[in-house]
Amino acid sequence: MKYIIFGESHGPAIGVALEGLPSGIALDMDFIASEMARRVPGQNAMTTARREKDAPEILSGVFEGRTTGTPLCAVIRNTDTHSQDYAKLRTLPRPGHADYTGFVRYAGWGDYRGGGHFSGRLTAPLVFAGAVAKLVLRERGVAVTGRISNVAGIPDPTPEQMEAAILAAKAELDSVGGRIRCSVTGLPVGLGSPDFGCNVEGIFSQYLFAVPAVKAVGFGLGEGFAALRGSQANDPFYLDGGTVRTRTNHSGGINGGITNGMPVEFEVTLRPTPSIARRQQTVDLSAGREAELEITGRHDPCIVPRALPVIEAAAALAACELLGM
Amino acid sequence: MKYIIFGESHGPAIGVALEGLPSGIALDMDFIASEMARRVPGQNAMTTARREKDAPEILSGVFEGRTTGTPLCAVIRNTDTHSQDYAKLRTLPRPGHADYTGFVRYAGWGDYRGGGHFSGRLTAPLVFAGAVAKLVLRERGVAVTGRISNVAGIPDPTPEQMEAAILAAKAELDSVGGRIRCSVTGLPVGLGSPDFGCNVEGIFSQYLFAVPAVKAVGFGLGEGFAALRGSQANDPFYLDGGTVRTRTNHSGGINGGITNGMPVEFEVTLRPTPSIARRQQTVDLSAGREAELEITGRHDPCIVPRALPVIEAAAALAACELLGM
Amino acid sequence: MKYIIFGESHGPAIGVALEGLPSGIALDMDFIASEMARRVPGQNAMTTARREKDAPEILSGVFEGRTTGTPLCAVIRNTDTHSQDYAKLRTLPRPGHADYTGFVRYAGWGDYRGGGHFSGRLTAPLVFAGAVAKLVLRERGVAVTGRISNVAGIPDPTPEQMEAAILAAKAELDSVGGRIRCSVTGLPVGLGSPDFGCNVEGIFSQYLFAVPAVKAVGFGLGEGFAALRGSQANDPFYLDGGTVRTRTNHSGGINGGITNGMPVEFEVTLRPTPSIARRQQTVDLSAGREAELEITGRHDPCIVPRALPVIEAAAALAACELLGM
Amino acid sequence: MKYIIFGESHGPAIGVALEGLPSGIALDMDFIASEMARRVPGQNAMTTARREKDAPEILSGVFEGRTTGTPLCAVIRNTDTHSQDYAKLRTLPRPGHADYTGFVRYAGWGDYRGGGHFSGRLTAPLVFAGAVAKLVLRERGVAVTGRISNVAGIPDPTPEQMEAAILAAKAELDSVGGRIRCSVTGLPVGLGSPDFGCNVEGIFSQYLFAVPAVKAVGFGLGEGFAALRGSQANDPFYLDGGTVRTRTNHSGGINGGITNGMPVEFEVTLRPTPSIARRQQTVDLSAGREAELEITGRHDPCIVPRALPVIEAAAALAACELLGM
Repeated sequence: MKYIIFGESHGPAIGVALEGLPSGIALDMDFIASEMARRVPGQNAMTTARREKDAPEILSGVFEGRTTGTPLCAVIRNTDTHSQDYAKLRTLPRPGHADYTGFVRYAGWGDYRGGGHFSGRLTAPLVFAGAVAKLVLRERGVAVTGRISNVAGIPDPTPEQMEAAILAAKAELDSVGGRIRCSVTGLPVGLGSPDFGCNVEGIFSQYLFAVPAVKAVGFGLGEGFAALRGSQANDPFYLDGGTVRTRTNHSGGINGGITNGMPVEFEVTLRPTPSIARRQQTVDLSAGREAELEITGRHDPCIVPRALPVIEAAAALAACELLGM
Repeated sequence: MKYIIFGESHGPAIGVALEGLPSGIALDMDFIASEMARRVPGQNAMTTARREKDAPEILSGVFEGRTTGTPLCAVIRNTDTHSQDYAKLRTLPRPGHADYTGFVRYAGWGDYRGGGHFSGRLTAPLVFAGAVAKLVLRERGVAVTGRISNVAGIPDPTPEQMEAAILAAKAELDSVGGRIRCSVTGLPVGLGSPDFGCNVEGIFSQYLFAVPAVKAVGFGLGEGFAALRGSQANDPFYLDGGTVRTRTNHSGGINGGITNGMPVEFEVTLRPTPSIARRQQTVDLSAGREAELEITGRHDPCIVPRALPVIEAAAALAACELLGM
Repeated sequence: MKYIIFGESHGPAIGVALEGLPSGIALDMDFIASEMARRVPGQNAMTTARREKDAPEILSGVFEGRTTGTPLCAVIRNTDTHSQDYAKLRTLPRPGHADYTGFVRYAGWGDYRGGGHFSGRLTAPLVFAGAVAKLVLRERGVAVTGRISNVAGIPDPTPEQMEAAILAAKAELDSVGGRIRCSVTGLPVGLGSPDFGCNVEGIFSQYLFAVPAVKAVGFGLGEGFAALRGSQANDPFYLDGGTVRTRTNHSGGINGGITNGMPVEFEVTLRPTPSIARRQQTVDLSAGREAELEITGRHDPCIVPRALPVIEAAAALAACELLGM
Repeated sequence: MKYIIFGESHGPAIGVALEGLPSGIALDMDFIASEMARRVPGQNAMTTARREKDAPEILSGVFEGRTTGTPLCAVIRNTDTHSQDYAKLRTLPRPGHADYTGFVRYAGWGDYRGGGHFSGRLTAPLVFAGAVAKLVLRERGVAVTGRISNVAGIPDPTPEQMEAAILAAKAELDSVGGRIRCSVTGLPVGLGSPDFGCNVEGIFSQYLFAVPAVKAVGFGLGEGFAALRGSQANDPFYLDGGTVRTRTNHSGGINGGITNGMPVEFEVTLRPTPSIARRQQTVDLSAGREAELEITGRHDPCIVPRALPVIEAAAALAACELLGM
């Protein structure tokens, strides 16, 4: 499977072109809508007030409700945009954001409005693609489920703890980061290989690091392996009926770059939203002098809740690749 | 650049074929030898007693001391091998190791001796390739340097602390994990893109997860971002002469998947060596029953010190790809 | 550059997503429209009567008239469709067409109407992408020009000969094939390499064979080399000012898979349109018995004239890849 | 499957690294030797007098006579080399050869001796890889067979005609080209897709154009399609038992980029050996002036006979890719 996510936050539309889908997959549009609803902003006080319809129009690759196997393109129109909010950012890059690197990378020709192609809004087509991938995986008995494993440094937070931490940051014109832990069940043993470009960790990380704000990826115990002894970290084998399993799953379902039949488990870390309302130090790229910046647009104080379906989507696409699609 | 690492621990030879090198790079064999010496085992009490000559023979791609630009193949002969140490492992997979997944993946046809293609010994040709890549990068002012940032849970350990922790584990027939932190300096601003397969984090992680035992990769603050506020995590811009820089480098030199001109910094976590001398629970794959396993071969109680040049090698190859080679 | 052509002949829309364009390219929409007009059907008696507006809507990747460097998606709505013409073809595959192979490949889930994703209409977004590629190439002094070098076996036909041959076939409810010869000027010497996946012939042929109906590709003298002596085929070198050139260009601008500074020249052969009005023998896939088929839809008796801009488009995209885009 | 062919004509060795082979394939070394013997020079008056042992040493990827599934590297040592024959060619590029383009591409750092990496000798490891691929295909009922379909313009020549034509050219210090026609039987219907990079013609041509001297590739009737009517070119369907077949195979087993279950048939055109003994016009690259060149080394007056197993090898590798390996 090969995909291209396209669009800019304030352009005509965003979307995804997806090549290599199997044919005959019933496109459960209710499921897709429910997946996309999970990342829609404006749901509560914790997220940006921007309202998106985010109803994707499918232009190709589906016939009589099922995938044709030929490339699928889905498009989401941009409607509720306030371009003026961002005009001044053109030459005042936001710290922690891609404004400056995008400016250099695209030689000043990028669409600077609302972050352009770097906008978190571009994760909507990714969730769409991931929802399609989940439908493909469902037919093979593979499921992807994630949960918020950390917000603002609080491990496994309750909704109340999460809300409190996020609103506290918001009140201080600030933002918080967090972590998402994900499990992919149903993958058979023996997928992947130790070699470059083919190992399970490499394939998953490729998809996960394509999600904005992801700055770390760990499999199984992840960075927790550093403090462990081998005797603690190794997963002892046992027989479950005739099936070889491990009593623990510290390896995250992967040994030597190959699935071992246990769930593939990983955890990603998301940086705090760089767009904060506090005054920050920056540089005026046109004037060539240092400057201060106060951002007035609408921004999530914490993207972790909305990122949950995005991470699952990336994992679903990775699982499809691993399965040879 | 495209590469294939080949070989098995107890086969005739291991090596690497490397395509896409620039031509005219002087192949400083002293430098290459010194890089390879950094991962050679048998240097002290902390590492396995196996002695490797590890002198690579260059079969192609070099003429009169410089790269020709056509594929370079380097081969290292296997000599000091004790195959009998491993024979019983054929059907008794070591917990935490790739024995079981390799057995399934290759349908029992793999070379089981000494871990076969999964052996840590396969990192020798990777270090060779990385040394060549470092020579390429040197001409462009790019350098890769790493350090051990954690052993057995001890952050930034002194050599004495490291040795103590490793020898303690060895005495208890056990092993320890750790972390390596790496910095790539000299990369220009504007490399990479936010898109799948092109972002800097994705490219580096692809190479890093191809190194055996790497289970987590983080950029900049990595998983530390979870506990931070945006105001702490953002890197304020300033002008250094006419050059835009950031006062901190929490982003690890990357914003929006694109280099920002600061050093690209990342940290990998290595699991403790799975091959430990303690008795472990496993399954006899041929008999189809649970079994116990005691490993008697030579194994490092901690691979972190030897992994240092390997991680640098992977990073050097990633940097070459990022530079369009 | 990476692209996905999507759409089906009778679906909502067709289009292309194009990733990896350089930023800052002025998108000359008049030029693009003129390129697309070159393949529009319904222009004269020689082509199908179907009318297409084919006005592409650009959804992304362009800002203030220039490419942003982020993925560009262009969409062309389908309007003038007569689905009923094709219903009976679902189980009666047309000889020479992709009906049968598509049926098997996509397990019967493909959109069979009008050829679905196999329709020649899908070449419209390819021409769009090629026009953008030509604008990119123009800034680098590279130009792609093609001409019809054969129709119905007539080499270098005049428009009158061409029209006569095509109308003769049409009158007999038949179709004719032909050839297109193309030249890419301005490519510097030294692009490509002899290795798999990197040689100039391989790169161009990859793009050219993705054009429907192309069944042969030759470079320089192409299949004419078979009958020549080396002394006739070799291109003698000479000095043009300080520049090395060859007196002839039998090699088509390529030696050892690498450009030699002369124009890259190639010729493609297009099969006659398989959709002919004559009665043909086929198989009824649902009934499992042999059957006869008479096609009543609108079809070009010769696609060579309309294929000319398509072949140029494919060559322009190949040239961009060769230039490292 | 991914492969890297490495080596230079007069370097220490040539060889191939091959990744992605299935495991458990019995490596029939007699078969491999017989395949390699088919391209060995020095067999008769028609070929160069250079003697090659060409006995490949397998360094990895094989254990107890079967493929392990991990990368296989095979090496052939260079022994019988006459470097002095080529020294003067360093700055006097042979017309029609890669001397000049290689000089520019590799900035003068290439190994110029005997054509270096461009030498026809590099087809030996390709034949080795193809022989392994044929063994893989054999288990799946797929076979690749080729024949010389043209020498010096003579279609389907008898051995006597071939020898006469080649010796005539040799006597005149010249060389001749030709064509090879190949058939791949046993591929199931439904492989490939119409999309870029996935269509059968594109995949095969990628491999075929990586063979030195191949300048044209056609499928089925190839360039013969230009002169045909649709009614002649289309392959009528019929039922053979329950199986859909076509009465003719003009399409070469491919429709819409997808296999149709008939043999995949293609024909390649090979240019006459550019290295001829006649005096030729060239340019002295170091002196910057025009010059004449007389080549005294050993060269085949016609490479077509020796190219036969090479083309089959390329086709076998392409078939493996098509089958998802």
